[in-house]
Amino acid sequence: MSYNTFGHLFRVTTWGESHGPALGCTVDGTPPGIPLTEADIQPWLDRRRPGQSRLTTQRKEADAVCILSGTFEGLTTGTPIQLMIENTDQRSKDYGEIAQAFRPGHADLTYHLKYGLRDYRGGGRSSARETAARVAAGGVARAVLGQLAPEVAITGYMVQIGERHIDRARIDLAEVTRNPLFCPDASVADDWAAYLDAIRMDHDSVGAMVEVLIQNCPPGLGAPIYAKLDTDLAAAMMSINAVKGVEIGEGMAAAALRGTQNADEMRMVDGVPAYLSNHAGGILGGISSGQDIVVRFAVKPTSSILTPRRSVTKSGGEVDLVTKGRHDPCVGIRAVPVGEAMAACVVLDHLLMDRGQTGGVRGKIGN
Amino acid sequence: MSYNTFGHLFRVTTWGESHGPALGCTVDGTPPGIPLTEADIQPWLDRRRPGQSRLTTQRKEADAVCILSGTFEGLTTGTPIQLMIENTDQRSKDYGEIAQAFRPGHADLTYHLKYGLRDYRGGGRSSARETAARVAAGGVARAVLGQLAPEVAITGYMVQIGERHIDRARIDLAEVTRNPLFCPDASVADDWAAYLDAIRMDHDSVGAMVEVLIQNCPPGLGAPIYAKLDTDLAAAMMSINAVKGVEIGEGMAAAALRGTQNADEMRMVDGVPAYLSNHAGGILGGISSGQDIVVRFAVKPTSSILTPRRSVTKSGGEVDLVTKGRHDPCVGIRAVPVGEAMAACVVLDHLLMDRGQTGGVRGKIGN
Amino acid sequence: MSYNTFGHLFRVTTWGESHGPALGCTVDGTPPGIPLTEADIQPWLDRRRPGQSRLTTQRKEADAVCILSGTFEGLTTGTPIQLMIENTDQRSKDYGEIAQAFRPGHADLTYHLKYGLRDYRGGGRSSARETAARVAAGGVARAVLGQLAPEVAITGYMVQIGERHIDRARIDLAEVTRNPLFCPDASVADDWAAYLDAIRMDHDSVGAMVEVLIQNCPPGLGAPIYAKLDTDLAAAMMSINAVKGVEIGEGMAAAALRGTQNADEMRMVDGVPAYLSNHAGGILGGISSGQDIVVRFAVKPTSSILTPRRSVTKSGGEVDLVTKGRHDPCVGIRAVPVGEAMAACVVLDHLLMDRGQTGGVRGKIGN
Amino acid sequence: MSYNTFGHLFRVTTWGESHGPALGCTVDGTPPGIPLTEADIQPWLDRRRPGQSRLTTQRKEADAVCILSGTFEGLTTGTPIQLMIENTDQRSKDYGEIAQAFRPGHADLTYHLKYGLRDYRGGGRSSARETAARVAAGGVARAVLGQLAPEVAITGYMVQIGERHIDRARIDLAEVTRNPLFCPDASVADDWAAYLDAIRMDHDSVGAMVEVLIQNCPPGLGAPIYAKLDTDLAAAMMSINAVKGVEIGEGMAAAALRGTQNADEMRMVDGVPAYLSNHAGGILGGISSGQDIVVRFAVKPTSSILTPRRSVTKSGGEVDLVTKGRHDPCVGIRAVPVGEAMAACVVLDHLLMDRGQTGGVRGKIGN
Repeated sequence: MSYNTFGHLFRVTTWGESHGPALGCTVDGTPPGIPLTEADIQPWLDRRRPGQSRLTTQRKEADAVCILSGTFEGLTTGTPIQLMIENTDQRSKDYGEIAQAFRPGHADLTYHLKYGLRDYRGGGRSSARETAARVAAGGVARAVLGQLAPEVAITGYMVQIGERHIDRARIDLAEVTRNPLFCPDASVADDWAAYLDAIRMDHDSVGAMVEVLIQNCPPGLGAPIYAKLDTDLAAAMMSINAVKGVEIGEGMAAAALRGTQNADEMRMVDGVPAYLSNHAGGILGGISSGQDIVVRFAVKPTSSILTPRRSVTKSGGEVDLVTKGRHDPCVGIRAVPVGEAMAACVVLDHLLMDRGQTGGVRGKIGN
Repeated sequence: MSYNTFGHLFRVTTWGESHGPALGCTVDGTPPGIPLTEADIQPWLDRRRPGQSRLTTQRKEADAVCILSGTFEGLTTGTPIQLMIENTDQRSKDYGEIAQAFRPGHADLTYHLKYGLRDYRGGGRSSARETAARVAAGGVARAVLGQLAPEVAITGYMVQIGERHIDRARIDLAEVTRNPLFCPDASVADDWAAYLDAIRMDHDSVGAMVEVLIQNCPPGLGAPIYAKLDTDLAAAMMSINAVKGVEIGEGMAAAALRGTQNADEMRMVDGVPAYLSNHAGGILGGISSGQDIVVRFAVKPTSSILTPRRSVTKSGGEVDLVTKGRHDPCVGIRAVPVGEAMAACVVLDHLLMDRGQTGGVRGKIGN
Repeated sequence: MSYNTFGHLFRVTTWGESHGPALGCTVDGTPPGIPLTEADIQPWLDRRRPGQSRLTTQRKEADAVCILSGTFEGLTTGTPIQLMIENTDQRSKDYGEIAQAFRPGHADLTYHLKYGLRDYRGGGRSSARETAARVAAGGVARAVLGQLAPEVAITGYMVQIGERHIDRARIDLAEVTRNPLFCPDASVADDWAAYLDAIRMDHDSVGAMVEVLIQNCPPGLGAPIYAKLDTDLAAAMMSINAVKGVEIGEGMAAAALRGTQNADEMRMVDGVPAYLSNHAGGILGGISSGQDIVVRFAVKPTSSILTPRRSVTKSGGEVDLVTKGRHDPCVGIRAVPVGEAMAACVVLDHLLMDRGQTGGVRGKIGN
Repeated sequence: MSYNTFGHLFRVTTWGESHGPALGCTVDGTPPGIPLTEADIQPWLDRRRPGQSRLTTQRKEADAVCILSGTFEGLTTGTPIQLMIENTDQRSKDYGEIAQAFRPGHADLTYHLKYGLRDYRGGGRSSARETAARVAAGGVARAVLGQLAPEVAITGYMVQIGERHIDRARIDLAEVTRNPLFCPDASVADDWAAYLDAIRMDHDSVGAMVEVLIQNCPPGLGAPIYAKLDTDLAAAMMSINAVKGVEIGEGMAAAALRGTQNADEMRMVDGVPAYLSNHAGGILGGISSGQDIVVRFAVKPTSSILTPRRSVTKSGGEVDLVTKGRHDPCVGIRAVPVGEAMAACVVLDHLLMDRGQTGGVRGKIGN
């Protein structure tokens, strides 16, 4: 089976390979009457675009999005929106050797085992280029949220690169877009860049941890039991290339806590219930509580490195493989706008689902 | 929206509340001709059953499963299997106060906000009692795997309780079922029990981390891009009550690694490709590689504790809430068989999906 | 694959066999806060119940529905509703011979070919008893519609039994429930009953055509392109046992019409667009127009008859088979409440889907 | 909600409008290793292409299909296949008046009511041009069936145009492609063409009935209860533009039959069960029996005619509307290849589903 659709009511179906003529997605379920042109989507793609600094791949892709259907006179019609991005900078010659060998850490071997054949050019369908389509879809989701729930703010940023961790007390969301690493602390951005440079010079790569913060998410979103909001966020993030872990709120650290510590106590403040902490990360029982939603995911180090690694070939030989080409020293960086996009899609999807079942009417507190 | 179905071809729809007459699930998509009686399912439920040691809730539930449909003369017919478990030990009177107040860490407030009303008895649908139905479904999945892929072994165990961590070098799967904590190291099981006792006496609770190991999983399972094997495992585990994080292989620790460290190199061994390490946790590009699949998830501490926590009421008052009743000091313990069951369902689902698309034929290595 | 779930947002999963201990369904996606008890569902089951007149099977089933989950204090909670109906009048001994032989017109052979085994007692899962679960689900749908769109009226009735056709000019919906044949013309009901009696005496059975009329359906329901309102109605009706054809509005007769005849012209009446005819049957482009929705389906004659028919056995022998037991001379009669129930589920499902995408806001005509 | 995906394991998501830059579909779930190039798909599109005879619209579309993803070196890879068809002959100026008025029989009013706005150029998404994408997808399905089940033959043809009915005894499948009407009787093809010419000259249009015959369909396909083979075929055909009814085997005529007539009796012939008739149309209990599958659907007359019809406008005015432009006098003609394509998709989808659940192993008859 192949399964390239994401979402319940707001459904995104992506298609395309790294070295095919184009890639894109169909966005189905968009509400009608939402202003939408390429200009609403392109800025999000530009954030993810390669070749923007020495810290990401030097592949030069315009990543220009084209809307082929689903809008009329600048408004969504409620019918499926087709977004296409042409691949312009393909260098298939870079990929000669790996037609036969399986690159460690890549999906080469598993695609071969599953399908019996594979498009070895740049990883084919398993390439992270697929995430461009997600970012485009996220742009549509953001445009819709801008109309239906304009208070929602979704911001991704880096909280760890290899051995470098952010000091959470110094997180400043305003800094995120001011440096190429999506680092939310201006005082360490230069150090992080130097650290990454050294790793690249060393013919190595490094992992990263990304946090996505969803502020002002309406309460009541989430479809228990098997499409809980956190379940869908976990699936969304884990489906991103190279992601190995996802956590909400306290996340894995919750295993070390006591009940007395972990409880998010409540008091009435100005006639409204207010949480005194947010260990839960904004989700209880799979449903948003109205607090900030905090999602983190870990991205493994780029598997394509210039240091030789031992591997095998299709014919059963052994090989020491260097993955040439133009690769990111830290794929986690470009995963930031992807994580944001997935979060936007999930929040909108649940907003529509909830509106379908409950009409969006909320239970009340107080008199 | 409500969404209580899990899986693609092997689909489990659960229903039921903590204090209703019964709970259960419909298991749809089971292959025909598989031997299946209640005796194949009951042992898995018995592992999860409450009241078996002083370390879990003293609620006494028989958790006796009944097959209402889908089998004939001891074999599955390929039609939907209905599994029902009657609730026998309900004490609704324990839940008087929380009809009005929202328990911190529970879904009380979010269900109220979303639905405008809630079944406050034991958390209603948000109660972990729902997981009994999952374990029953997992029993069906295991019975099918026993016929289609008998080499697959799925074992869950505890790797952390609060401040106590397992020494991975001492993990012995044979020990897991010999102690009530699913602890895989006999030398620490008593210490863990004493630690947990102390926490309980302290009117507190504690978190835990569970690992599920899938051995001998056939390669080629996984449906890229949005039903990757790890995506579906992440969704499966995150949908379990109180889970706050999920990781595969290196998991969150991958953020700190370099590409040279994280690469799982390969060599030919006896004419077959062999990985020299397993940082990936058995999944590459969302497809199983044939290596052990390693999934971990963190369970937050039980929210129901005897130490008062500050909260609010439906009418907007403030309250200091003690959650009486019979509660687990560590809900992570009983999450072990639940995690195993979810893993069994996911593996079988992907085995059937893969058989559908590819016929289960694998790509070859060597001549 | 097995697929026992119907609907998108309002999803019904049925389970159970003719001769198992019980059958039922899980109704997922019901809005919260809807008054619902067994008393709201039972009357619809009573309409379908066997043994009520000499014109239907003499099998005596109480068909008493029990709500096992999803309601609290008489209101739906928004969580899955489990409905169970126990089978009380099973006579497995009636089914000895057909354990080996395949009854013509039944699913015996095809289930055997597909699954390799079958529950031969009363047809097992392929028995029309499964439709009791649908009628129960339809009762839930009607209860919800009663709150969200109380103007909607859904009425099924017989328009043909064998050679007897209704005179459409004489259709009187008030008559439908006054005779056991759901005949909407009082002047022919007795004749139809006598006709059916003669067929039964003749050890034969007869087909029927059922019409379901949906009055006051809100405009705008339908999810183009592949979940159009008529598409989903067609699927719903075709999934009913013994149904061989489905039509909307003019239906098959549209093939003979000219464009000038078939056009439903419009004029403004009291400031609102009014159709001057209804060839379309209330649906255009897969979306409800606000006109009456008219669906018809043909039910083949009961395959179980007392006249011997030639058949074969599992071991490859030949046999002349008489299907004893207690069978309806015209299964189309009891299909009437089933068709109504399916229509209710489809309309509610689309009401919720539409509310999800568009918010239920309608385009305007005039100033 | 919008829902533009069709199928379970073999899933087709179509997108595009009549007058946008392009339309197409994503085909997900194709087995890997199937030879596939544009040349395998184009011939099917050519059959549906407009402007090929005076009997269909004079709109000139090349309908050239382009594969944008999912194949590598001429073989499918198992990843999503994107098919794009550019719109080349758009004349938006033809559609000025209908920007304000609602054409009778079209989806203009219902799209306006549902979405609040509509792409009025050629009907936008509701245009039958969308079916080009279906035919392309059907080409992929046929290519796969050619490898997995090469014995399957799927043929659509016209059995009625307006008052002209086929003489079933004279049906000759070899004739179907020899005339522009897909008429299976050479002796009447000229008469039908003249009949249609006269209707066109009369500024009118006419309905039609199409039959799709599936020969050598493997037994055992169909997923009871809610994805029965006939259920999915009914949904497939009813989703085609202008279709008002669908029937299997005897279809609506089954209502008039007796059980003794309708029974498809069986005898052993050469050691294999053989049916002596095929009233069922090849499907019993929703599962294919191995007999020919016979599906018919009625297509209403083209709504766009040159004879004025009364209608209303968005601003609430009244108008007598002539639908200019280049329209088919009988849309049923071009629905023939569309019906075939939908049948091919459904059969392949069920073949894959069945292989997933049962492994494609069949129950046996005889020793």
